[in-house]
Amino acid sequence: MEKKIPYKIYLEESELPRQWYNVRADMKNKPAPLLNPATLKPITFDELRQVFCDELARQELNDTDAYIDIPKEIRDFYKMYRPSPLVRAYCLEKELDTPAKIYYKFEGNNTSGSHKLNSAIAQAYYAKQQGLTGVTTETGAGQWGTALAMACAYFHLDCKVYMVKVSYEQKPFRREVMRTYGASVTPSPSNTTNVGRKILAEHPGTTGSLGCAISEAVEVAAADPNYRYVLGSVLSQVLLHQSVIGLETKAAMDKYDIQPDIIIGCAGGGSNLGGLISPFVGEMLRGEKQYQIIAVEPASCPSLTRGRFVYDFCDTGKVCPLSKMYTLGCDFIPSANHAGGLRYHGMSSVVSQLYADGYLEARSVEQTSVFAAAEQFARIEGILPAPESSHAIRVAIDEALKCKETGEEKTIVFGLTGTGYFDMVAYEKYNNGEMTDYIPTDEELEASFAKFPKVD
Amino acid sequence: MEKKIPYKIYLEESELPRQWYNVRADMKNKPAPLLNPATLKPITFDELRQVFCDELARQELNDTDAYIDIPKEIRDFYKMYRPSPLVRAYCLEKELDTPAKIYYKFEGNNTSGSHKLNSAIAQAYYAKQQGLTGVTTETGAGQWGTALAMACAYFHLDCKVYMVKVSYEQKPFRREVMRTYGASVTPSPSNTTNVGRKILAEHPGTTGSLGCAISEAVEVAAADPNYRYVLGSVLSQVLLHQSVIGLETKAAMDKYDIQPDIIIGCAGGGSNLGGLISPFVGEMLRGEKQYQIIAVEPASCPSLTRGRFVYDFCDTGKVCPLSKMYTLGCDFIPSANHAGGLRYHGMSSVVSQLYADGYLEARSVEQTSVFAAAEQFARIEGILPAPESSHAIRVAIDEALKCKETGEEKTIVFGLTGTGYFDMVAYEKYNNGEMTDYIPTDEELEASFAKFPKVD
Repeated sequence: MEKKIPYKIYLEESELPRQWYNVRADMKNKPAPLLNPATLKPITFDELRQVFCDELARQELNDTDAYIDIPKEIRDFYKMYRPSPLVRAYCLEKELDTPAKIYYKFEGNNTSGSHKLNSAIAQAYYAKQQGLTGVTTETGAGQWGTALAMACAYFHLDCKVYMVKVSYEQKPFRREVMRTYGASVTPSPSNTTNVGRKILAEHPGTTGSLGCAISEAVEVAAADPNYRYVLGSVLSQVLLHQSVIGLETKAAMDKYDIQPDIIIGCAGGGSNLGGLISPFVGEMLRGEKQYQIIAVEPASCPSLTRGRFVYDFCDTGKVCPLSKMYTLGCDFIPSANHAGGLRYHGMSSVVSQLYADGYLEARSVEQTSVFAAAEQFARIEGILPAPESSHAIRVAIDEALKCKETGEEKTIVFGLTGTGYFDMVAYEKYNNGEMTDYIPTDEELEASFAKFPKVD
Repeated sequence: MEKKIPYKIYLEESELPRQWYNVRADMKNKPAPLLNPATLKPITFDELRQVFCDELARQELNDTDAYIDIPKEIRDFYKMYRPSPLVRAYCLEKELDTPAKIYYKFEGNNTSGSHKLNSAIAQAYYAKQQGLTGVTTETGAGQWGTALAMACAYFHLDCKVYMVKVSYEQKPFRREVMRTYGASVTPSPSNTTNVGRKILAEHPGTTGSLGCAISEAVEVAAADPNYRYVLGSVLSQVLLHQSVIGLETKAAMDKYDIQPDIIIGCAGGGSNLGGLISPFVGEMLRGEKQYQIIAVEPASCPSLTRGRFVYDFCDTGKVCPLSKMYTLGCDFIPSANHAGGLRYHGMSSVVSQLYADGYLEARSVEQTSVFAAAEQFARIEGILPAPESSHAIRVAIDEALKCKETGEEKTIVFGLTGTGYFDMVAYEKYNNGEMTDYIPTDEELEASFAKFPKVD
């Protein structure tokens, strides 16, 4: 007899993962190594540990151990906001009149408003453990900065956030959340760094960019041996920490004998998608199971669907290592898209390799259709989703409507990575009918591709 | 052997309350009846049903049935965001180094950001069931309006919100959340009503008031037989719906054999406090148990600690019924206090009667000390609390610190009614050291008391 599925499946505290899953260990084709930007040679542990904490540098390079223990201190913090619920979208199913069964893993029930906290707390912990004074980072819209500020407050660690100036001024609420958690937030470019002063001198009126903010954060960390720089996406260590999402999802589904057919996640840098799909892809890699996995990206920034699989810089400032990944070029500037978290030019090397090897497919969607899905979802399921997460909602609804046509009772699970409470300017635009779509032309992309760094 | 208490206690779906608890049934001294503002006689069912849905009018007048069934449709909606967790504040306990055990019932994990949804969904359901087209209401800061918009979207019911103009303009995010849920939001005063046009003519530059917004919402509802007016606090029907908070809290504590000593809630109109304490007060009323119950209010709007227990108007516009309650006078305008939800001049008649009869005590606290508690809590427990809720946090911390001095291992539970994500302007003021306190003088209060309506 089929077990009655509740609206929300919460694992017991005792069922929470005690280890992260490192999908790289099960990949036959490993992600290509990061390259030192100065030498274009594979980066070594000794080089990496000048930027990251030792343990994080180790995790970044570890592609052999399938399971890595989650330290007790991190598990204790996880217990404050995890397990996140796996929700059966009964109301959405009814509204769509579909035979499909829809589930979503909701990561928005914490003050950072997203899954970012899963990695922030791990990175802060290892910094604390190493006896460091603090960490530096950059933030655009502010989700990652908020998560890191929360994590640092918990471990009484300094947190210096360089926030893209235009966001600092136009999104004061995120800034104030970070300050409430004790972080120092500096609009970038600033006169606190050499690179910032240089940019300000050359471009006095600039409103900043993520690339510039990264460069400032890296400079500040490099100048003090008691600081390290931390990053919230793209890196393999971040995907490792985010595997907690997929592990919980799988444990909750196993508990109720639920077998997913389609797994959907939005893809910016790839950390939430990679985390959600890791344990499922692991089963595929080991030949145990088969799933349809769909990465969803904005049509305005289509790294998987239209980018190239090459070595490229991870940052616009070209100070960070190079990664082999699907990329639109590190100078590619996507048109205004309110899903700030999906505007990254590249993609996690793990997700890129899995995509190249055919373990997942990718779709791009336009933002007005994304906000239509977001609104429909909010009105019937109650949760106001983040624009990023709503990319996954769009495709989940599309797949459920296909099932309505075919009569198939597929089980769909998607990642609802966060809430949209700090994105109401975008919703306002949508509500007022002022939102537009933009798709880059082939010519624009070719011009960007022409600037790829020469490697080999 | 004592059971191991997890960080978060979630009831199973099957353990959710199937009935609300009506504390009035167990009160020997019943709350005094509402009076018709025109006749100053107790209001009748036939009079009330012109303003409220029939079933809600019945619930408002029902002080004899201890349990009232929660309709299945409302329970289904509750399942999307309930049970809310009862959290053991292990990290806060450790930070305070207190022998006290601290718990909080967290009602902020839904898009309305507060407990308001518990009553909004009930009021929308009864309106739908009666075949109405829609409902009208007023909102200040926007928590109640958001909750009602969500509830109406779910039942495909029209929702017309009159939002105090200054909030409409200065808090556009809440406004956009309501619009995303399909509500029409009108800045008040507006030219859509007689009362609005009159006020605009007399005070062209006015930024509005809650009293004016109530008057507009009532006028619009009264003009169309397919609409009713709904209200998010103060009323006994609202306390009834909010009893779901206390029932879940008690069930979760009973499940783990936890015996609270002190129960703390913030008090504005009294709905969250009344809901949280109802089942516990029920035990006191029936002589079964004894608890210390503390209502916390802002020093700037101290209705319980410094108000009078008299008949007064529920609204500044004096169009609503009179209620016997602790009140500062319906014309009392509290100084700027960022806890918008606690700026009401009066108090629920149920809470007022219980207070008069000695079942609870009251404390007033100043807002800078409230924000200090909010920040301390956020940094260690992760959740950024609403200013309203932080009043309860302040007193919970104070009580835990008393235990540290005396060595008593008291069990403290408080209501964490919501999140502060839309209150960052207030946090910014606090972060910048620009927040001030204000306590009304005795002369100010006496001047306000002099205007109480003459009843009997």
